[in-house]
Amino acid sequence: MLADITLNVPSTIEFGLGKITTLKDHLKSNRRVFFLVDAPVVKEIEPLLRNISEMGIKTQLSSEVTPEPPIESLEKLLKPVAQFNPDAVVGIGGGSTMDLAKLASVLFNSAQKTEDIIGIDNVQARSVKLITATTTAGTGSEVTPIAVLTDTEAGLKKGVVSKHIVPDVAIVDPALTITMPPALTAVTGMDAITHCIEAYTNRFAHPVIDTLALEGVKLMFRNLEQAVVDGNNLEARSAMALGSLYGGLCLGPVNTAAVHALAYPLGGLFKVSHGTSNSVLLPFVMKFNLPSCTARYADIARALGLDGAQSEETLAIQAIKEIRALSERCSIPASLQELEIPESAIEEMAVAALQVQRLLANNPREVRLEDAVAIYQAAYRGDVS
Amino acid sequence: MLADITLNVPSTIEFGLGKITTLKDHLKSNRRVFFLVDAPVVKEIEPLLRNISEMGIKTQLSSEVTPEPPIESLEKLLKPVAQFNPDAVVGIGGGSTMDLAKLASVLFNSAQKTEDIIGIDNVQARSVKLITATTTAGTGSEVTPIAVLTDTEAGLKKGVVSKHIVPDVAIVDPALTITMPPALTAVTGMDAITHCIEAYTNRFAHPVIDTLALEGVKLMFRNLEQAVVDGNNLEARSAMALGSLYGGLCLGPVNTAAVHALAYPLGGLFKVSHGTSNSVLLPFVMKFNLPSCTARYADIARALGLDGAQSEETLAIQAIKEIRALSERCSIPASLQELEIPESAIEEMAVAALQVQRLLANNPREVRLEDAVAIYQAAYRGDVS
Repeated sequence: MLADITLNVPSTIEFGLGKITTLKDHLKSNRRVFFLVDAPVVKEIEPLLRNISEMGIKTQLSSEVTPEPPIESLEKLLKPVAQFNPDAVVGIGGGSTMDLAKLASVLFNSAQKTEDIIGIDNVQARSVKLITATTTAGTGSEVTPIAVLTDTEAGLKKGVVSKHIVPDVAIVDPALTITMPPALTAVTGMDAITHCIEAYTNRFAHPVIDTLALEGVKLMFRNLEQAVVDGNNLEARSAMALGSLYGGLCLGPVNTAAVHALAYPLGGLFKVSHGTSNSVLLPFVMKFNLPSCTARYADIARALGLDGAQSEETLAIQAIKEIRALSERCSIPASLQELEIPESAIEEMAVAALQVQRLLANNPREVRLEDAVAIYQAAYRGDVS
Repeated sequence: MLADITLNVPSTIEFGLGKITTLKDHLKSNRRVFFLVDAPVVKEIEPLLRNISEMGIKTQLSSEVTPEPPIESLEKLLKPVAQFNPDAVVGIGGGSTMDLAKLASVLFNSAQKTEDIIGIDNVQARSVKLITATTTAGTGSEVTPIAVLTDTEAGLKKGVVSKHIVPDVAIVDPALTITMPPALTAVTGMDAITHCIEAYTNRFAHPVIDTLALEGVKLMFRNLEQAVVDGNNLEARSAMALGSLYGGLCLGPVNTAAVHALAYPLGGLFKVSHGTSNSVLLPFVMKFNLPSCTARYADIARALGLDGAQSEETLAIQAIKEIRALSERCSIPASLQELEIPESAIEEMAVAALQVQRLLANNPREVRLEDAVAIYQAAYRGDVS
């Protein structure tokens, strides 16, 4: 029997080259718009912001975004937003920027504090318009009910999950991703592939999301290397942007699992970027999960174009090898060692990862403390065989 | 290169058995709710309506829905809605009910009249919440930016297309479809299959929609007969509900083509239901379109599980035959003759269909007047060979 599912998505999704210009149409009825924009993109969208000002709309722009944003960054952002008192908040950038914009939009004029909204369904309401435009492919944050903050003191990532932080409008314009350097393209792309794989092999997998997840893996597997090698290849950039959008759509209703849970401490303790953390850990967690999702890995292998005539198990193993090989071709770091994470931190990271039960509960195979340690150890050595 | 696409969809889609009960959660912040409910469902949802009243929400219910609603039906509905002055409008029923609710929600407190909003993007705004719940599988209207009215004088169907009539929340609860009698199950199901086929073979087909369309055909092809034969089969009902939802999601960004254009006059002139009109015409229009979309029909055949080793053309022809055979197994009328439409009306119907350029422009093969006549003639005889 088909299980229940609730999809909370932007009521408008604009996909395609040049779609960032639709921003002005979506802001027509607004008077005061606060923009949070990744610094490298500010110049590119200046003409558009001028257009918007000329429409008689008051605008304010900030590009103060700390990657893997600590809670203090959000607190700091809330002041100018509250002072400006916008009727729309727009976040243009990668996951950190969009997450901050999403959180600011619900907090700046609310009695709730940051600590009140951490967790699932704790945001009470949002009263202003929220628009996101992504410049990576990517976190998928442009369409998700999720935002992640770093609790620097605790050395932990903390998630806010609420339908109120799903943007009203999400813009996915592949042209905005062209300036991403190869290394960032590689890890953000592998992060997006991770979203699809963790959704497809999820304990709460659902046919609606399966369809998007497999299509996303297929698209991105075929195009990531090209996008890394030749950043100006619009076709590869478009395919990656769409695949990443699919990945994002998987995150709300099904969400991620052990890769993301184990990645959190890398960010929290060692400031390794979200994309890099997930990219590096993906093959090792896949290997660990293999016994619990052989058939699903085989489906992924088939989506990657591998021969369906082999046994399910051979195909499943092949899927892991292909992902690992793609990582290598895209020069993604092969081990924790390469990230200069000390082997001595493994125990602490494993303890921290085990706290992320919100995601571990989704994993197809139970992850105990010793399992997390073993996965980190394999990832430390870079040994996926 | 991937083409642009804009998706306008409900920000919340609730899918699954029993999901109709989420209605009360979605109405929590409302004070006055107007319900338009298909008469056969009123009894079933009475306990839920009582619950909602007990939450201190004022409710008013109408079940005055004329199938294939004439413009006058809408006008008549607007009076009690305006008088009640709701802050939310809920439509629970088939396409006619949901379409009326969608249109009422934007017109009852607006300076715009019905004639002002007919066509594409003519609705200025909507100021109240709009929720739809479908009781068929189906029109897909629960998620579309489309509503269709009958202009009785002109003997024509007229469409309203606007993002403002996309509901805020769409509820697809397969339990609500169980009481549909076999004949209605058959034609509404085939209508939903038509949505997917016309989207997949559309001149403006898009990969995002292709994925949903193929998945929809696959699901519904496997389950329609079972849902017709055994209406209590919840698994078949769930699969049909999901397939129909996919079909609905295809309608906004890509929409239908010649089947729907040629079906309009059957409704406009002879009051044949939308589902029946489309069901009967589908194989004949597919036959006409065959030369222009052989590869796409072959994809559909493969989605239906037919052997991929045959030639593309053989597969494509097989797809048409399979659809026709499914129609027969579901006892869908095989010809216009069976619908008691006089052969002498073909010329008039063809002239009327040619006016629906909004949809004909999407068709993979140009439909001239003589083509429309030929398709109707074949459909009159019931000869798809």
